[in-house]
Amino acid sequence: MAAAAPPPPPTPAPSAPTGLSDSTPGGHPLFSRIRLATPLDIPYIQKLIHQLAIFEKLADLSTATESDLASTLFKSPPFHSFTIFLLEVSSRPFENDSAFHSQNFTPIERIINLDHSVIDPEAEAFANGINGDVVVAGFVLFFPSYSTFLGKPGFYVEDLFVRECYRRKGLGKMLLSAVASQAARMGYGRVEWVVLDWNANAIKFYDEMGANVLPEWRICRLTGSALEAHRDAN
Amino acid sequence: MAAAAPPPPPTPAPSAPTGLSDSTPGGHPLFSRIRLATPLDIPYIQKLIHQLAIFEKLADLSTATESDLASTLFKSPPFHSFTIFLLEVSSRPFENDSAFHSQNFTPIERIINLDHSVIDPEAEAFANGINGDVVVAGFVLFFPSYSTFLGKPGFYVEDLFVRECYRRKGLGKMLLSAVASQAARMGYGRVEWVVLDWNANAIKFYDEMGANVLPEWRICRLTGSALEAHRDAN
Repeated sequence: MAAAAPPPPPTPAPSAPTGLSDSTPGGHPLFSRIRLATPLDIPYIQKLIHQLAIFEKLADLSTATESDLASTLFKSPPFHSFTIFLLEVSSRPFENDSAFHSQNFTPIERIINLDHSVIDPEAEAFANGINGDVVVAGFVLFFPSYSTFLGKPGFYVEDLFVRECYRRKGLGKMLLSAVASQAARMGYGRVEWVVLDWNANAIKFYDEMGANVLPEWRICRLTGSALEAHRDAN
Repeated sequence: MAAAAPPPPPTPAPSAPTGLSDSTPGGHPLFSRIRLATPLDIPYIQKLIHQLAIFEKLADLSTATESDLASTLFKSPPFHSFTIFLLEVSSRPFENDSAFHSQNFTPIERIINLDHSVIDPEAEAFANGINGDVVVAGFVLFFPSYSTFLGKPGFYVEDLFVRECYRRKGLGKMLLSAVASQAARMGYGRVEWVVLDWNANAIKFYDEMGANVLPEWRICRLTGSALEAHRDAN
């Protein structure tokens, strides 16, 4: 917990190489699914957060343990507080698993036709034990915000992450769009997140999503001992 | 609801003139109190939001009605969702009003000794009907955020506003510090907000509070028709 730490940003697909195998144009379907995360997903989420921190060269600031996450997440109904969409992929169709259907959210499924099948060097670590072939590929964490000008809530996206071998396939856009879609359907006024000003790829990605980058605003942060100093200030 | 609208920032005391009356060094106590707002305070809050929008030269973007606020605020226990601290002032001691004491928050009271009594040109519009001499002077709206790196919640401050004639007396600091104190006592990891990069007075104020301004991050916003376009994207 360092006072100067920048916040974890949503991370769009960077220009990372992709693991490839045989090539058949469009002949390699990647079945993808977005569903609400559950407490059982915490081990995957903790690993994804750690990978995000490494990507941002901020691994030393990423101290969250599975126990930290378990004690602070999944305490409220989805969308009313901190909410996580988990992205799963499979080379086979998903089983019709009604366990992930809820009155809050119906999983979003999409088939992405790739020219090459993906080689996932971490397939074992991210394999979803229940469904055999299913692998956790990314996540987005968001929570309600409020605009006094609009007089209505919105969503703030704290993290958006897709594992390296699954980038540049539209999955990051699918995750962010799922949050935007949820906001629109709830009648919310906006979705916001932050981006590093030098991350041109990300800014282009967000622009294509229809977002504006606000040039004049800066984030202020009170944390660590500077925050603690206010404990008994009143 | 304009796509390019900057968010309402916390607004610290600018160099505005103060209404003055007779001068007696330290002889004019201003009794100040921070308490949790209630639905009964919505008319004051709506007016304060409108004043904030005018101060930011964004009045055309501030469309929230009392009805909008009533239908979206005070839906959850304090600190679990959107939360408002109301700042009240009085030239006389506050009555021992236990109505504002709750298990969630004990009001914070402070006496500020001024050399001049404050002339409040809007005293009538902001008079608290219950307590006679008590006047609403400002507010802060905040809600829980989440840091995946810390694995714990924080608070995000959406608005901080003190009416013009009560600025430069430490009341803005008292409001922001009340949020920071609450965060520290709840074991939260950080308090964040945004500031306009040209607002040197505000940046100095926040620096004195112990906050860091993060230079590299930019806010991205998806709103209006661009947000609506994602409604059925999945």
